[in-house]
Amino acid sequence: MTTGSWDPRLLVLGLLLWALGPATSQGGKLLVVPVDGSHWLSLVRVVQELQQRGHDIVVIAPDASTHIKEGASYTLRKYPVPFQREELEKTFITLGRNVFENDPFLQRVIKMYQKVKEDSALLLSACSHLLHNKELMASLAASSFDVVLTDPFLPCGPIVAQYLALPTVFFLNGLPCSLDSLGTQCPNPPSYVPRPLSSNPDHMTFLQRVKNMLVALSENLLCSVVYSPYASLASEVLQKDVTVQDLLKSGSIWLLRKDFVIDFPRPIMPNIVFIGGINCASKTPLSQDFETYINASGEHGIVVFSLGSMVSEIPEYKAMEIADALGKIPQTVLWRYTGTPPPNLAKNTKLVKWLPQNDLLGHPKTRAFITHSGSHGVYEGICNGVPMVMLPLFGDQMDNAKRMETRGAGVTLNVLEMTSEDLEKALKTVINDKSYKENIMRLSSLHKDRPVEPLDLAVFWVEFVMRHKGAPHLRPAAHDLTWYQYHSLDVIGFLLAVVLTVVFIAFKSCVFAYRKCFGKKGRAKKTHKSKAH
Amino acid sequence: MTTGSWDPRLLVLGLLLWALGPATSQGGKLLVVPVDGSHWLSLVRVVQELQQRGHDIVVIAPDASTHIKEGASYTLRKYPVPFQREELEKTFITLGRNVFENDPFLQRVIKMYQKVKEDSALLLSACSHLLHNKELMASLAASSFDVVLTDPFLPCGPIVAQYLALPTVFFLNGLPCSLDSLGTQCPNPPSYVPRPLSSNPDHMTFLQRVKNMLVALSENLLCSVVYSPYASLASEVLQKDVTVQDLLKSGSIWLLRKDFVIDFPRPIMPNIVFIGGINCASKTPLSQDFETYINASGEHGIVVFSLGSMVSEIPEYKAMEIADALGKIPQTVLWRYTGTPPPNLAKNTKLVKWLPQNDLLGHPKTRAFITHSGSHGVYEGICNGVPMVMLPLFGDQMDNAKRMETRGAGVTLNVLEMTSEDLEKALKTVINDKSYKENIMRLSSLHKDRPVEPLDLAVFWVEFVMRHKGAPHLRPAAHDLTWYQYHSLDVIGFLLAVVLTVVFIAFKSCVFAYRKCFGKKGRAKKTHKSKAH
Repeated sequence: MTTGSWDPRLLVLGLLLWALGPATSQGGKLLVVPVDGSHWLSLVRVVQELQQRGHDIVVIAPDASTHIKEGASYTLRKYPVPFQREELEKTFITLGRNVFENDPFLQRVIKMYQKVKEDSALLLSACSHLLHNKELMASLAASSFDVVLTDPFLPCGPIVAQYLALPTVFFLNGLPCSLDSLGTQCPNPPSYVPRPLSSNPDHMTFLQRVKNMLVALSENLLCSVVYSPYASLASEVLQKDVTVQDLLKSGSIWLLRKDFVIDFPRPIMPNIVFIGGINCASKTPLSQDFETYINASGEHGIVVFSLGSMVSEIPEYKAMEIADALGKIPQTVLWRYTGTPPPNLAKNTKLVKWLPQNDLLGHPKTRAFITHSGSHGVYEGICNGVPMVMLPLFGDQMDNAKRMETRGAGVTLNVLEMTSEDLEKALKTVINDKSYKENIMRLSSLHKDRPVEPLDLAVFWVEFVMRHKGAPHLRPAAHDLTWYQYHSLDVIGFLLAVVLTVVFIAFKSCVFAYRKCFGKKGRAKKTHKSKAH
Repeated sequence: MTTGSWDPRLLVLGLLLWALGPATSQGGKLLVVPVDGSHWLSLVRVVQELQQRGHDIVVIAPDASTHIKEGASYTLRKYPVPFQREELEKTFITLGRNVFENDPFLQRVIKMYQKVKEDSALLLSACSHLLHNKELMASLAASSFDVVLTDPFLPCGPIVAQYLALPTVFFLNGLPCSLDSLGTQCPNPPSYVPRPLSSNPDHMTFLQRVKNMLVALSENLLCSVVYSPYASLASEVLQKDVTVQDLLKSGSIWLLRKDFVIDFPRPIMPNIVFIGGINCASKTPLSQDFETYINASGEHGIVVFSLGSMVSEIPEYKAMEIADALGKIPQTVLWRYTGTPPPNLAKNTKLVKWLPQNDLLGHPKTRAFITHSGSHGVYEGICNGVPMVMLPLFGDQMDNAKRMETRGAGVTLNVLEMTSEDLEKALKTVINDKSYKENIMRLSSLHKDRPVEPLDLAVFWVEFVMRHKGAPHLRPAAHDLTWYQYHSLDVIGFLLAVVLTVVFIAFKSCVFAYRKCFGKKGRAKKTHKSKAH
């Protein structure tokens, strides 16, 4: 073949390149700084999708991580921390156990506060070990990443991003204490935006609004124990004064795992992208075991039961109560439970160490979902249109349960106080009362009716930040105002001063004019008055 | 062929149905209540697209409409109004003329106020004639529409929608006096959200913030002359008390022709969908005439010049000044101008009665765009990456110009005060100073980098409202609060009262305890004191 002639293999090559998509030629480099535990489970799907689009991805995690493991889609770089994986696992187990301890209220609060303090000190130490790991940090700095993708729930990722001077995309389910409002400068009126952990709806009574305001006022105090140490650490590492707000406002785009079928409508900001339900995307066929269970369930179908990845054991007396209730419904129950099987376990109840929750919920024979109402579970219930019995345990789970109950898509029970009969009744209600199925199907159809799938949207915005090196055109000027400027207090003060000055001058002029008219009389009186003193 | 055997024609039919898309089977009925003038120009694209997706569309308009004409995509139902089309056209022409009258400031303001009052009375009378047209209204009520698509700039559509009890989608470029914030209950802090017509940026100096606050305070007063009569009309027709806010809050979805490449980032609400740049979608090949002009322009290319659909004549002295400047640049200028050609028109300047603005701007030989910076024009400039010389005339045009100038994508001139040299200099600057081209190309790439095209997004949300009969899950609870509840004034008052009561009781208790301790002395003193009175 002579040079310059057309080679038909070029066509094949061209087609191949075209089939691989435009991403191949744009492949960039991402640094992912995840938060361990259930937080990682939906982030990893985005990581996989980004890798498939031709990007190089490095994930950094402590060597004691419980959920973050080697994966084909990314390079995992572990760093040493001063604790073992078992120690971290123990903190999760204790968290689950604490829930079932029936202590008086005040004692529970104190216990929870101390637990949060201890656990967050442990996680902070991991972050500190990362930032002081000179070798790793230098290697990251030399890697020329395009973007940092991180969950700011523990704001270690934002410090890394600022240290490396890289644009940042946040991926999160929300932050406690309205810190996400602070970070995005999003207005958050306490009159109709229920505060996290308040269990308030959006239409509040007067007393609920009072409660909401009190929670709003105490939020800063509550969260400073976890978040302030990160600001100190950042100030040390970045060698400048850094506040928690400085760390959070560095997010170019906030990928928020929320959706208004669950959350109440409220103000948002242009750089907040809603990707709630992203965890429903991956579906795989059920294994033979689970298929067998479902097929054997007959016309009554199955009930899926899981208290999430962080709680798999519960006290025996509670397990027996639950087992008793489960035995009284005609459905087959698949229960994720790793503890000792309760002795009264009925035949219809199958204990499993792990279950493919989203795939099971997607099966047409699934009648109900017993869940701790963590955000992943609730979205999987909605995506698949399965009514829920909710046993919220801690964190945002009470709020999620409240929202689903308000919408008539499930029944909430207090796991500590409920009896066997309560659970049985709740299950029979959500299965037999058609309104629950109708409501969850309505939510499901609203939720899934969207112009872009959440996974595609997340990938789009990560790549957007890579292409444009941030998204400064979406950054509100509010970030550059002090609190009193933001609320226009200086302007209001100035205008009041002007008005008062004008009124004062007008008044003085009137007095002056009055004196001019009735001159001598006025002066005479004054002179007389001064003499009298 | 025997019954039951498979007919291959079924495959063809199936493929045909599939090719026509799912919309054919979902075809719904839409009622469109547009606003005349340039407002109609981008709405009609959405109407065309909806028709192509299988929907039946009825557009209602006064028989004196200037821009709303019969179209293949919709059934136009005209209703009689007590004025002629010529009268309406005259109001547009006067609006254009007023701009060029060099009156003193106060006189201009009074003139403008009276013009707005007169014009809006004319348009209100059209709305009143529609609502009192029993035959037409009864026929609309009998037509079982699924949704009303309307521009609430003149809130006649929302009254029709409420009369017919139909869900509503708003399609607009924004409302004056922050009425869109009122209608969506969207927070709008005057500290960094520049008020319409203030020409303020988002990063304001103290004095700009004072100005912004003053504009914010006077907005209600300014707009009541146009909007309050619609509330009275609505109250009469709907036979209940209706406010302007009631009319505006009825919008399920607000399709806003805005984008943050032009507008400054600010709080938004979940039912606001941004479709800025929707008018750039339609591209058609240039006619032979325009192709000839462009080809003849040589290496220097062309400049496109239009003051919009509402101003096509300007005073002769101004036209001569402009013609003089245009003659001094090497580019060919295509100027949309319907008045008498200025006698000094240079050879490089071609006057045309109409020009395909978006198609011309999209031509690679277009070097600059002289525009009144109306929203359509500015988006077409951005979409096509053409630097602009802006001669804002009225309405939001000053704000648009200010925003583009702030971003270094154009130069703004005061059309009344500018000299021929100013225009020549501005043109040479935006054409020869590379930074203008670079900045507009950067804005263009940001603007066009989006997960869904604005036209598709608009169509999606209209159909969403049709499918779900509204979007109540996106309606904030703020709509059901009074203003003092919204700002939590009752809660703050209550909490202050509680705190003061506690302080008062504590103080009284201290006083009581003090008296107990130093009992006799205190009592003795008191007795002594009472006697003394």
